[in-house]
Amino acid sequence: MMHPPQRSVELTQVTEWNQGTVTAVQDTLAAEEPLEIRVDGSPLAVTMRTPGHDVELAAGFLLTEGIVKTRAQIAGIRAAAPHNGNKSNVVEVELSSPVSERVPLERNFFAASSCGICGKASIEAIRRRDLRPLEQAFRIDPDLLCRMPEELRAQQAVFDRTGGLHAAALFGETGVLVLVREDIGRHNAVDKVVGWALNEDRLPLDRHVLMVSGRGGFEIVQKALAAGIPILASVSAPSSLAVKLARELGLTLIGFLRGQRFVVYSGGFRCLPEAAGRPG
Amino acid sequence: MMHPPQRSVELTQVTEWNQGTVTAVQDTLAAEEPLEIRVDGSPLAVTMRTPGHDVELAAGFLLTEGIVKTRAQIAGIRAAAPHNGNKSNVVEVELSSPVSERVPLERNFFAASSCGICGKASIEAIRRRDLRPLEQAFRIDPDLLCRMPEELRAQQAVFDRTGGLHAAALFGETGVLVLVREDIGRHNAVDKVVGWALNEDRLPLDRHVLMVSGRGGFEIVQKALAAGIPILASVSAPSSLAVKLARELGLTLIGFLRGQRFVVYSGGFRCLPEAAGRPG
Repeated sequence: MMHPPQRSVELTQVTEWNQGTVTAVQDTLAAEEPLEIRVDGSPLAVTMRTPGHDVELAAGFLLTEGIVKTRAQIAGIRAAAPHNGNKSNVVEVELSSPVSERVPLERNFFAASSCGICGKASIEAIRRRDLRPLEQAFRIDPDLLCRMPEELRAQQAVFDRTGGLHAAALFGETGVLVLVREDIGRHNAVDKVVGWALNEDRLPLDRHVLMVSGRGGFEIVQKALAAGIPILASVSAPSSLAVKLARELGLTLIGFLRGQRFVVYSGGFRCLPEAAGRPG
Repeated sequence: MMHPPQRSVELTQVTEWNQGTVTAVQDTLAAEEPLEIRVDGSPLAVTMRTPGHDVELAAGFLLTEGIVKTRAQIAGIRAAAPHNGNKSNVVEVELSSPVSERVPLERNFFAASSCGICGKASIEAIRRRDLRPLEQAFRIDPDLLCRMPEELRAQQAVFDRTGGLHAAALFGETGVLVLVREDIGRHNAVDKVVGWALNEDRLPLDRHVLMVSGRGGFEIVQKALAAGIPILASVSAPSSLAVKLARELGLTLIGFLRGQRFVVYSGGFRCLPEAAGRPG
């Protein structure tokens, strides 16, 4: 194996479409797993992160969020012991000062999951329980897909001027652009599209393609599933957890959609020629 | 004015450095402000967003986070009335079903700020109260800055293979690369760098430059300030709120650092020739 697996990346089989030619290739995904930070025995926050340097991540989080100001305020910090043979996704912190002297935790923390979290259980611990597998009826021509990034760029009202906004675009089954929304946050751009559909009573969006300008992470996949969107495409790379969830619930997940090429991470039957699509 | 201001963008004066030539130019920033979503009178979540389509954003958030499943479950949804002459940063939602039938709110919500939030008060409402203005002693040569993106790319162990990771790099005052950390989340990459410094007792990082591969948003600026880092550079664009906070506390904020060019949004005295640096 040319690239030995490490915990910050994961290898997976994907399908590349390039000007009509379909090839099975091995791809390297950025690993994404939840990390729970526990302070004095209580869960403080859960963050989606790439495993590696977890203790540094927890220490930096405590400092930059104002929980501690100095090293001396941390009496102990360690990764929790492996759980059921899986490496732990928990860092335990013990503070020197009593709780009452700490900055109140009023800002910006992800609520901690109620479940214990370990590597293997990570998807189960953070994903919504109410999402159902998608219907398989909708398909789209790969040539239509390849036109979408260009259409999105042409429609972006703000992006070219600031260089700082993400976009989410909804395309119909004939490849027509239905809606574009922009936001400094990738998740918000998707929520604006889905909220429009909800307000217009168009849900589920079961005959549509969602295209995002940023990465296709776990939470973007989850949002697409919640809206019943069968195909999610991006110009960039998805995360390992995004691919896992997409495969589990039958979402077609496409990355690196650029020019006349794209990579299919899941659900290739919706966008590849019949013979080629099955393994994806 | 060629680009009339709208609420999704903000105009500001910046300084461009290009191969030693310094020019004052007008730049367009992506607007970033907090939006509070209130459900049945109680704050549910605060998200940093680009103003515009706020009702869609709130509706989409409710759907994709599993609070509602259908349009009929939303009895009313509206932007709150302007507050002290500022456009509101609050969307109020009234649900049809009683609270007990709703999905429990156990996941991934930003804690709501305790303050009321309106456009003008937004920074005060979300920023940490304990951050202090930075010392002004540290300066760096623009040519050293221009070498940093290339050094960062050369050191990135994972990025080139997955295309899915963000990087944060710490450079010393001679331009030497001290540390690189990568993560699927931009904030996490920065926290890993700061956490390393905390664990090594190197804080404050008052003679260092932090370079990030993604955007310089409000929260990244806040994290740099918490670690005492005087210069934050990125290859991309900062948000409006990032620029405001950087200017207020004297952080040098640099964007579009590419080749022999960069844009200074704040604190130009640390990286520009003496005569040119004052306005930034």
